[in-house]
Amino acid sequence: MKVLVIGANGQIGKHLVSFIQESDELEARVMIRKQEQASYFEDLGAEVSVVDLEGDIEEIAKAAEGVDAIVFTAGSGPHTGKDKTIMIDLDGAVKTIEACKIAGVKRYVMVSSFDTTRKAIQEAPESFAPYVAAKHYADEWLKATDLDYTIVHPGLLTNDEGTAQVSLSETGEPDEVPREDVARVIVASLENDSTISKEFQVVKGNTSIEEAIQSI
Amino acid sequence: MKVLVIGANGQIGKHLVSFIQESDELEARVMIRKQEQASYFEDLGAEVSVVDLEGDIEEIAKAAEGVDAIVFTAGSGPHTGKDKTIMIDLDGAVKTIEACKIAGVKRYVMVSSFDTTRKAIQEAPESFAPYVAAKHYADEWLKATDLDYTIVHPGLLTNDEGTAQVSLSETGEPDEVPREDVARVIVASLENDSTISKEFQVVKGNTSIEEAIQSI
Repeated sequence: MKVLVIGANGQIGKHLVSFIQESDELEARVMIRKQEQASYFEDLGAEVSVVDLEGDIEEIAKAAEGVDAIVFTAGSGPHTGKDKTIMIDLDGAVKTIEACKIAGVKRYVMVSSFDTTRKAIQEAPESFAPYVAAKHYADEWLKATDLDYTIVHPGLLTNDEGTAQVSLSETGEPDEVPREDVARVIVASLENDSTISKEFQVVKGNTSIEEAIQSI
Repeated sequence: MKVLVIGANGQIGKHLVSFIQESDELEARVMIRKQEQASYFEDLGAEVSVVDLEGDIEEIAKAAEGVDAIVFTAGSGPHTGKDKTIMIDLDGAVKTIEACKIAGVKRYVMVSSFDTTRKAIQEAPESFAPYVAAKHYADEWLKATDLDYTIVHPGLLTNDEGTAQVSLSETGEPDEVPREDVARVIVASLENDSTISKEFQVVKGNTSIEEAIQSI
């Protein structure tokens, strides 16, 4: 299964590409913005496409040709400029979803925000609400397609070392989660079709990822 | 026909409420953010609901109870803060669309931007693209509902006196258009069911609004 990682050069993205390359079932192609980011991924044995997520859908679709799945883990987090929030977290995501349709890719894993419900938009602090709204509309766009989607809603991301143990839930309490474990959950989602048409929150916990994924 | 005007206190909104109140077929209710804006509209004989577009859908739905149509002409234009772009032009619009469903309102007229196509997003100057994207997603959300919608795409808005003559087209050349004439086109759209499920661009021109609306 060949997986195109959008946002490979991000912190989750780098863990993810490593885990994909270690997996027996998966291999990675990365979509990166700058040629100088390529060697890091080439050293991991990944294919590289240099395409700007702010460019045309057709360019993204070309990068997606021949892959079996797309993982969207690009984006800014809540603290980039507000114009990037809509252009990357919403419009960038939608363009990759539309690119799937052009390239004939059926499987799509979205790395979302912890809570992207309407209620979360309304209750978010004013500076955070635009990010939640952007992620909300990207998730809604994805769910309205007939792609085989999974939406992963991670808690507060940390750079702590992963434990390969998590807690998955539909609507749980917010908590921290190491980026490394989020990347492992993405891999487990790609490897388990039971995650198709599902979305779940991920925080640190005491259940092995394999077991947690099986039980959702 | 009772019409709830969202964004009544804006420049198009004020013209619109006046024209609605002059019409034999229409009467206005306005949704405004601040109580001190109320007397202007009460003097025109309009009903007033003080509701913040950034608040809950349920509040907006209450403001929409008993009306026959909503006109969305709120928003910022391209030069407000980028966080307002997503929270007003996209999320605010979507909330009024969802409020229609709750309140049982079928008719919806959206004041959009001149060109909200994918191509327009890609070709917009970087500072303008987030606004085009926000309007694009609001329009797309509306078109995916089963509301009786009309989407009005005005050209470059001016405060010139209106002429009651315009040029309407599906995809025309950009040009100026007085806000007053945009307001007249909205009224004509509400009065002509032939505009349902249609969208069109409006610039200044030489055709009477009535005739232009009939021919789309």
